[in-house]
Amino acid sequence: MPSRSTLTRRTRARKLGIEIGRFSPGRYNAITDVTGVRVGHSTVSFGEGPLVAGVGPARTGVTVILPNGGNIFESRVIGSGFILNGAGEVSGLTQVHEWGLIETPIVLTNTMSVGTCSEAIVKYMVDRYPGIGDEFDVVIPVVGECDDSWLNDAAGRHVRHEHVFEAIEAARTGPVQEGAVGGGTGMITCDFKAGIGTSSRKLPLEEGGFVVGVLVMSNFGHMRDLRVDGVPVGRLLEPEYADYLRRIDNYGSIIAVIATTAPLLPHQLHRLCKRVALGIGRTGSHAAHGSGEIIVGFSTANAVPRRAKGMVYRVKALLDVRMNALYEAAIEATEEAIINSLCMAETTTGHSDHVAPALPLERVRELVRAYRPTFQTPR
Amino acid sequence: MPSRSTLTRRTRARKLGIEIGRFSPGRYNAITDVTGVRVGHSTVSFGEGPLVAGVGPARTGVTVILPNGGNIFESRVIGSGFILNGAGEVSGLTQVHEWGLIETPIVLTNTMSVGTCSEAIVKYMVDRYPGIGDEFDVVIPVVGECDDSWLNDAAGRHVRHEHVFEAIEAARTGPVQEGAVGGGTGMITCDFKAGIGTSSRKLPLEEGGFVVGVLVMSNFGHMRDLRVDGVPVGRLLEPEYADYLRRIDNYGSIIAVIATTAPLLPHQLHRLCKRVALGIGRTGSHAAHGSGEIIVGFSTANAVPRRAKGMVYRVKALLDVRMNALYEAAIEATEEAIINSLCMAETTTGHSDHVAPALPLERVRELVRAYRPTFQTPR
Amino acid sequence: MPSRSTLTRRTRARKLGIEIGRFSPGRYNAITDVTGVRVGHSTVSFGEGPLVAGVGPARTGVTVILPNGGNIFESRVIGSGFILNGAGEVSGLTQVHEWGLIETPIVLTNTMSVGTCSEAIVKYMVDRYPGIGDEFDVVIPVVGECDDSWLNDAAGRHVRHEHVFEAIEAARTGPVQEGAVGGGTGMITCDFKAGIGTSSRKLPLEEGGFVVGVLVMSNFGHMRDLRVDGVPVGRLLEPEYADYLRRIDNYGSIIAVIATTAPLLPHQLHRLCKRVALGIGRTGSHAAHGSGEIIVGFSTANAVPRRAKGMVYRVKALLDVRMNALYEAAIEATEEAIINSLCMAETTTGHSDHVAPALPLERVRELVRAYRPTFQTPR
Amino acid sequence: MPSRSTLTRRTRARKLGIEIGRFSPGRYNAITDVTGVRVGHSTVSFGEGPLVAGVGPARTGVTVILPNGGNIFESRVIGSGFILNGAGEVSGLTQVHEWGLIETPIVLTNTMSVGTCSEAIVKYMVDRYPGIGDEFDVVIPVVGECDDSWLNDAAGRHVRHEHVFEAIEAARTGPVQEGAVGGGTGMITCDFKAGIGTSSRKLPLEEGGFVVGVLVMSNFGHMRDLRVDGVPVGRLLEPEYADYLRRIDNYGSIIAVIATTAPLLPHQLHRLCKRVALGIGRTGSHAAHGSGEIIVGFSTANAVPRRAKGMVYRVKALLDVRMNALYEAAIEATEEAIINSLCMAETTTGHSDHVAPALPLERVRELVRAYRPTFQTPR
Repeated sequence: MPSRSTLTRRTRARKLGIEIGRFSPGRYNAITDVTGVRVGHSTVSFGEGPLVAGVGPARTGVTVILPNGGNIFESRVIGSGFILNGAGEVSGLTQVHEWGLIETPIVLTNTMSVGTCSEAIVKYMVDRYPGIGDEFDVVIPVVGECDDSWLNDAAGRHVRHEHVFEAIEAARTGPVQEGAVGGGTGMITCDFKAGIGTSSRKLPLEEGGFVVGVLVMSNFGHMRDLRVDGVPVGRLLEPEYADYLRRIDNYGSIIAVIATTAPLLPHQLHRLCKRVALGIGRTGSHAAHGSGEIIVGFSTANAVPRRAKGMVYRVKALLDVRMNALYEAAIEATEEAIINSLCMAETTTGHSDHVAPALPLERVRELVRAYRPTFQTPR
Repeated sequence: MPSRSTLTRRTRARKLGIEIGRFSPGRYNAITDVTGVRVGHSTVSFGEGPLVAGVGPARTGVTVILPNGGNIFESRVIGSGFILNGAGEVSGLTQVHEWGLIETPIVLTNTMSVGTCSEAIVKYMVDRYPGIGDEFDVVIPVVGECDDSWLNDAAGRHVRHEHVFEAIEAARTGPVQEGAVGGGTGMITCDFKAGIGTSSRKLPLEEGGFVVGVLVMSNFGHMRDLRVDGVPVGRLLEPEYADYLRRIDNYGSIIAVIATTAPLLPHQLHRLCKRVALGIGRTGSHAAHGSGEIIVGFSTANAVPRRAKGMVYRVKALLDVRMNALYEAAIEATEEAIINSLCMAETTTGHSDHVAPALPLERVRELVRAYRPTFQTPR
Repeated sequence: MPSRSTLTRRTRARKLGIEIGRFSPGRYNAITDVTGVRVGHSTVSFGEGPLVAGVGPARTGVTVILPNGGNIFESRVIGSGFILNGAGEVSGLTQVHEWGLIETPIVLTNTMSVGTCSEAIVKYMVDRYPGIGDEFDVVIPVVGECDDSWLNDAAGRHVRHEHVFEAIEAARTGPVQEGAVGGGTGMITCDFKAGIGTSSRKLPLEEGGFVVGVLVMSNFGHMRDLRVDGVPVGRLLEPEYADYLRRIDNYGSIIAVIATTAPLLPHQLHRLCKRVALGIGRTGSHAAHGSGEIIVGFSTANAVPRRAKGMVYRVKALLDVRMNALYEAAIEATEEAIINSLCMAETTTGHSDHVAPALPLERVRELVRAYRPTFQTPR
Repeated sequence: MPSRSTLTRRTRARKLGIEIGRFSPGRYNAITDVTGVRVGHSTVSFGEGPLVAGVGPARTGVTVILPNGGNIFESRVIGSGFILNGAGEVSGLTQVHEWGLIETPIVLTNTMSVGTCSEAIVKYMVDRYPGIGDEFDVVIPVVGECDDSWLNDAAGRHVRHEHVFEAIEAARTGPVQEGAVGGGTGMITCDFKAGIGTSSRKLPLEEGGFVVGVLVMSNFGHMRDLRVDGVPVGRLLEPEYADYLRRIDNYGSIIAVIATTAPLLPHQLHRLCKRVALGIGRTGSHAAHGSGEIIVGFSTANAVPRRAKGMVYRVKALLDVRMNALYEAAIEATEEAIINSLCMAETTTGHSDHVAPALPLERVRELVRAYRPTFQTPR
């Protein structure tokens, strides 16, 4: 790995001068800029050396997104999703599509731990809301996965219920830890270490002043695919990283979660999630055959009651003609969230001397500057 | 055709003692029981003898459903649909699905007249709302079709703009003319003459008191498929109608429109439309390969403004757990609407001595009674 | 429960004179009439008395369908599915839809055991095909679920890996055990004990001679909904079973698996699965809000290689215009499979004195005869 | 409009040094590189001055794609599609999705002329294949539309049947005329004159040697959105074109047609069409609310017979794991086809002094060079 970098610490894309799109980020440039959304991680990382299934090394974890500040079971959020490529799974998504609702925390983890995380969420929900499965329907948690087995002893199933509880306990508003953390601990994007990334956009008041936040667990692509705000960074870096391109044919997947304060109905959220797919595409993804490119979205503007005095409740809804700014914001925030996941992740060695190098920030800054030379982009 | 019938006039299914399901119909047992919905027909029927393309005979027409009493362009209804089998077309349905809105009248006609009807609706809309295509988006009318070419000179395109205007002009609340009328003039179901049929259900107050109305343009199936409230009427009548089973391989299609006063969001209407498909299945349809089984649905509970002071409007929405009674009502009303389309249609001779016999009401009454002999069904 | 029944043993629908539809069943009237398909059960049933989570009583199990005789990982079958109502989950279905392939056994179990069964299948696959997750993609097993918690200590998770292995080991061609067995041990349909049911149709040679087999794990509906070949058996029996109608609002779900020897492509299988939904509707389902009505389908006519010398392989495909007989067969077999699941299940007492009564076969025979009195249906 | 351009003639993107992606184009860099595909235009352009509905000026036309060299009715191609945003219409797409087949020419025209073109295609088909609607099913032509009413007297419906026949007659293999021609005559992209564009990729032999060709009728976006191979050309040019940004809120739509020699099944083509959407996104589209971003795809590798001796035919199919190169090719060709539509279109004045300026090629070349300064991209 070229060690020209003099940027000694990881930093987010904006600190490198990478400002994607025309809208401004929210305060934290994170999904937590959507009021009420909290994010928590539990990182499971231990051991070194060769892979011994069940022993380690472990490079994995859990990231939890709590959609609203309160009681997600009683005050559900409107939700939807979009499957760009379905060689993966977000458990519970079938029901999210059917009902247009999200009524559990959203969990991101490795492929082999979906079941464990799902069980842990059911336990968590039943403890808090004892009527589940009795007077109420069974809950089906929303758990998304990517495959971290190139670094992690995935078959060892090192994620346990307590990690899910820990992530929930740790969930906070405000800044979000990014990179090789939580569910992103073992994830790789375009052959660089990546993982969790987030970004947000706050629309100007004349566009409604809504906030859009995206959080990704990013784990897709070949180095040659990577584009940073249109600059073909991956193609330019590839010759320098020939030694690191040893992975074959097990590329895949990104789970993106988009949240917004805009009062969107389920079909509007589905449309918004499609634009997240366009953002994923702009960073270089072609949504490979074996990849799970799956997007989950929700709006915090309405609380959908589980029970009501009458049968009818009132929902705020955005006029459709006002969707466009949200679409642009979704694309911008998605692109930046993916780049942030790369910018913030440290070089990570997993089992069997598998190494995922950190994105070389200094080099990326050089390249982006070189590709934006004479013009001051009028943003 | 056996002429045992002593029922000298066509009559609706309920008059024959056929009462499908457990809920009661609305006042008119018609889609017009949904307040604000109006239905109008224009029947185009002239000529006899062999088919001369462009000359006739014509056995066709137009049926128009106006979703609300007022200004459908400014006060749009929430809409959705479901495609059970897509060997057909409801123009505009792509946009209905995308936006979750219906903003034009809904038209039912023959396959070759979709373009004409669509143009006529655009004219009608532009006349009434001059900003269309200028300050507003272009409108895409919702026009459903079935193939009536076994009786009608379809290639002759005898439906003209004025027929659409006439049907709109004729649109009324209250009782709906059924059978071989309007868009249903040349349609055939299970080898019997059919066409337009309608039915409704009014839920009891404890289920919200909502009204569900269905109107079909029914044109599918072989005689052997026909079931009337579970009784295999088609199989029983088939031996008596051997001479009438001359049509080959051009079977197909039913367009169903479901309206409700229940405040449903687009994804809820999509779900409701799926239950209409189950109702179609209960009358005997297997949704044949070459058939267009397409359902369009809307709710009159909300008016979605085209413009608003703010960007946000308020929508009433039904709690999801209260959907079940609507589902049952949708199935019941669909089944009865199809049977009504058969019960109300007269024997029709089209071009080239093609005859579609009327469903023999007396025989059907006999059969249904015979198949419900000793038990008084506890409804 | 009225004990008029003199039929001392459970028997399949045909033995009662219930012959649904116009096509004949295959040799075993089971999904195993599709050559190569094997079915195995592992029943987990022990304990009595009140519910003690983790202790019992257990009324649950696992049913496994092996799609072909050989190596499902190397010789995959073409597959698809359809979601009639998505308040449930078939894990792996997202990938089945994306790839049009099924490459694992199909498992049916209770809601809380999906994760366990999925893990067990991964273990089973990795043992047999060591390259999985290494040179090959990760496999995502197809595991469908219904909620058996009214009888079963679902939270106790009594299904373990060995039950899955046992069911695979037990998988056989030939007759299939039905009723309260395997995944169906704790399932209830229209307030009667049900579970696993199966049926098949063999098309006449002029329709291609193809076989269609359906297997259901049936767990839906209220008694009043139940129809047996169009006869409103549920409504007629309801007064006699008032004491058994204690369950409230936790109704739901049926998973149906359809297999065929017809060479169908993925989109054709999707279409076939939609007809299974029509069959479900004919038995009385309205696909309730909280229900998971999910259908999985596959064709054994083609083996899709994982690797090939070239990149291209050859597939047999049915001409679309020949689909109709398959559609009818799918509806008929689905209806009969559901009725078989009821006819073959014994009265079962679960936890807390919850009792699911067996369908009273003698009464059903009486009712069906009474409702088919004077006519000999000309099938 | 800045007139610095010294490139006196319009030229394709590659002549400007814009080479998108890593694969090479086919011989003509056009959809016609897919053997058998022919493209023909009929341009309808006359009149000047203010808009007089029915009189002009007309800036519109028809583009026809013939999917195979021979008899599309008897030798149908496998087809599919994807709707990125459905505020538009491709008539016949419902059936393409249902059957996985395309059996008519594909037509691109203006919104108000869909009906006319559809009728003309039916006439054309019936003339050539007299059994249509009689022994065969009715055909439903595939006709896509964009709204050209900012330049064209769309309400005047200047496209007539003979224009469709003329375009079919003119259809050729080999080079394809691009820009303001045929259906693209009045189309605008990102505030520059655009219209028809095409591009292709030929995969290397180790990826199967397949050809992928894309043709677009491009009509979307604001100037600020436009990206050329990642360079934010639109944002950079916007200050120079302030006078031309007079259009408000009637932005929208792109219809893309993708053809390939790769033997794809319908579900594989659906997946390929989704990647076209990613390509559209890379040029700057956010798939605006009022826009119809619709993709139609077909493969020429198999001819699907309408009739067969048996019921079964044989289809070649690509191993799924070999899809990735096609995905990349689809994205690259889509991006380049859109840029070609801009590069090849001349400044066009429509009705009412509405002017759509040509993309300034010299400036674009400058900008792209400036944004690729020090590095020789290692393609």
